[in-house]
Amino acid sequence: MIIKDVTVVTADEQNPVVKDAAITIKGNIIEGITQGGNIPSDEHVIEGNGRIAMPGMLNCHTHVGMTLFRGYADDMPLMEWLRDKIWPLEDKLTYDIVYCASLLGILEMIKAGVTSFADMYFFMDATAKAAAESGVRASLARGLQGPDEHSDERLEENVRLYNEWNGAGDGRISVMFGPHAVYTCSREYLEKVANVAYKLHAGVHMHLSETRQEVEGCIREHGISPIRLAYEAGLMQNRMIAAHCVYPQEDDIEIMKDNDVRVAYNPVSNMKLGSGFCPASMYIKEGIKLGFGTDGAASNNNLSVMKDMQFAALTEKGRLEDPSVMSAHTALYTATAGGAAALGMNDVGALRPGMKADIVLLDIDGPHARPMYDPVSHIVYSAKDSDVDTVIIDGKVVMEHKDIKTIDAEKLYYEVERLVKEIEDR
Amino acid sequence: MIIKDVTVVTADEQNPVVKDAAITIKGNIIEGITQGGNIPSDEHVIEGNGRIAMPGMLNCHTHVGMTLFRGYADDMPLMEWLRDKIWPLEDKLTYDIVYCASLLGILEMIKAGVTSFADMYFFMDATAKAAAESGVRASLARGLQGPDEHSDERLEENVRLYNEWNGAGDGRISVMFGPHAVYTCSREYLEKVANVAYKLHAGVHMHLSETRQEVEGCIREHGISPIRLAYEAGLMQNRMIAAHCVYPQEDDIEIMKDNDVRVAYNPVSNMKLGSGFCPASMYIKEGIKLGFGTDGAASNNNLSVMKDMQFAALTEKGRLEDPSVMSAHTALYTATAGGAAALGMNDVGALRPGMKADIVLLDIDGPHARPMYDPVSHIVYSAKDSDVDTVIIDGKVVMEHKDIKTIDAEKLYYEVERLVKEIEDR
Repeated sequence: MIIKDVTVVTADEQNPVVKDAAITIKGNIIEGITQGGNIPSDEHVIEGNGRIAMPGMLNCHTHVGMTLFRGYADDMPLMEWLRDKIWPLEDKLTYDIVYCASLLGILEMIKAGVTSFADMYFFMDATAKAAAESGVRASLARGLQGPDEHSDERLEENVRLYNEWNGAGDGRISVMFGPHAVYTCSREYLEKVANVAYKLHAGVHMHLSETRQEVEGCIREHGISPIRLAYEAGLMQNRMIAAHCVYPQEDDIEIMKDNDVRVAYNPVSNMKLGSGFCPASMYIKEGIKLGFGTDGAASNNNLSVMKDMQFAALTEKGRLEDPSVMSAHTALYTATAGGAAALGMNDVGALRPGMKADIVLLDIDGPHARPMYDPVSHIVYSAKDSDVDTVIIDGKVVMEHKDIKTIDAEKLYYEVERLVKEIEDR
Repeated sequence: MIIKDVTVVTADEQNPVVKDAAITIKGNIIEGITQGGNIPSDEHVIEGNGRIAMPGMLNCHTHVGMTLFRGYADDMPLMEWLRDKIWPLEDKLTYDIVYCASLLGILEMIKAGVTSFADMYFFMDATAKAAAESGVRASLARGLQGPDEHSDERLEENVRLYNEWNGAGDGRISVMFGPHAVYTCSREYLEKVANVAYKLHAGVHMHLSETRQEVEGCIREHGISPIRLAYEAGLMQNRMIAAHCVYPQEDDIEIMKDNDVRVAYNPVSNMKLGSGFCPASMYIKEGIKLGFGTDGAASNNNLSVMKDMQFAALTEKGRLEDPSVMSAHTALYTATAGGAAALGMNDVGALRPGMKADIVLLDIDGPHARPMYDPVSHIVYSAKDSDVDTVIIDGKVVMEHKDIKTIDAEKLYYEVERLVKEIEDR
């Protein structure tokens, strides 16, 4: 397969933009990126038409199973929102709801140029099935809380998920362990989860240091910060994705560096819930791996990494009163190669020979896209996720000219309507 | 003309949402909003098709003549950006460039659901012509700096603009006076402008208190804040739109309340230039009229009030660590009725009988729009400006199903390319 006549934004440091290029794809691998040249006539050719090709974006923290709760409750703080609105809804969850919500969330992500996501929720076999069918990459964890009468079952479910799905979908799907947070898990339960994950060499995906209240509560209860508690419980022995990290305490940075903890930064969700601003530039300066996460549709209310990227690039400048921080290049890197590093994937997130073919083509037709002096600035400051035209994941075209190939959208929308009525009627 | 089968978001406090409604338009006025009912067969019917109808949004501060500078220079602070990048470019401006840039900016705004804008720049007769032709509402001011050898000419140009264009385009176009800022105008020149504007009963549109440096410099030079200087110079005798107001000093709030000064809040531009966060909730609490502005495409880099609204709603929650501030309703009000109040228009910005027909229809087709529990939350937290499907201004359909009626987009894009080359070659 060849994408011709395209402006390639590679997300590489050395050669960020290649104009009038052709991208050759063999199987699921990028074979070459060349300027000009003849196109063999027997290839599947995708017209780049002066479009921009960029790496697929990575969503390092979300809960696609919550997509049917988009806009269900807004303008409330995290704990009140969880206790009064979200947790009662989650008691009504079924496999069918999570499967439908996952497909809807994945469809939204593909249309917004997201090609990989990391998720933690319930009925994760439903999400795994949706990911496998739709062609997206996914790193999945069962959300774990405890101890209570079901907490051991949940952990067994996570183990089963690992055994059944890790490496599935031609290697697109991987499985991690998902202890929810220090305010929903006891220290002993965290240690139990850590032991199981460690033995399986599996990563851990956890909410950490999301709000001031979480940090204060943890220090009150345990005498240490959430990040230190996770460390001491043994959760950082393998790869750890820590979602949020809005309020790191002084020693936490050293713990994170020593244990190669990766941060999933959720700018939109952190603002929407009034949690605050994550010190993203500080993490980057400290060499801590950082990717963007949308969080669930209930607290965003989109699943667009481009939206995250644009909010992050702008709010960081506003917060630090410095227009040079979180530059266009840094923001784009974080949405692509940075996210891949955070999720422990070294073969996606940039466009160069040898990488897996996870590629997004952006239209540059609209008035908002004109003129275009610098494609990187364009993507971060001017583009819209609705400009995403074509999406290739693992060498397969999952969307071409906005036409999604792997999901029956009309059938899905009908099912969404039906299930929302069912939830409301209960 | 009738819009049928539509969900109406009125932006009124009492009855914010009317479902399954029909909007009847007679001439340029909304005649009625009714639920159900028979549609006379001899009317021009626009299928609402379950879409959302909302008031056209108002952009209270922009410079559409700068649209060809979109993405020309990023990640730099205001003064360096103006001195090293923007002002040298502006020396090359011509009537043709400003006309073309204005049409491009207006096209972008209409496609994003903006139906009115307030502008301050050069060659404003070119912008006025573009506004008149494209069907949009515009409040225009000549940017004024001085004293220098041309400052009196500029003021005369603003007077000529007023005489020729105020009330033109069936009343869609009005003219104000545009003293640039306290750091580009002397006190004497500000007084001169104030006198001329006062005698014509014309409003004043001015950058005020945009950065810490501006405020500190003004206090150093004049011993008072920019807002007090503008007041003492007599610029607040008629209607004053103050753009930015990021750093009001203590006495400034009383001055603003006493003189009914309106704030154009530019969240995206203020962040992008590292200026900081405007205390928007404080202005709303003090009863000061507040609308959104995009600022120019060179510092945003879009002209989307929906983008402004979404950034404002989220950053205010993050900044104050309070998810209840700048609620969905408040944000939507600011983008519509609040912006209209800021620009001194009492007949647009809300959908109710007797108001002018400035109406935007939003698609709710995409996966990001599903499910939809509350249309107001949907517009502020989930919708994209690319969802704008149809735009009616002053009772005329200027865009129907994304097809723009009043601007030849292909011809315009060709002209954009040509002029950008000309600017780069000079």
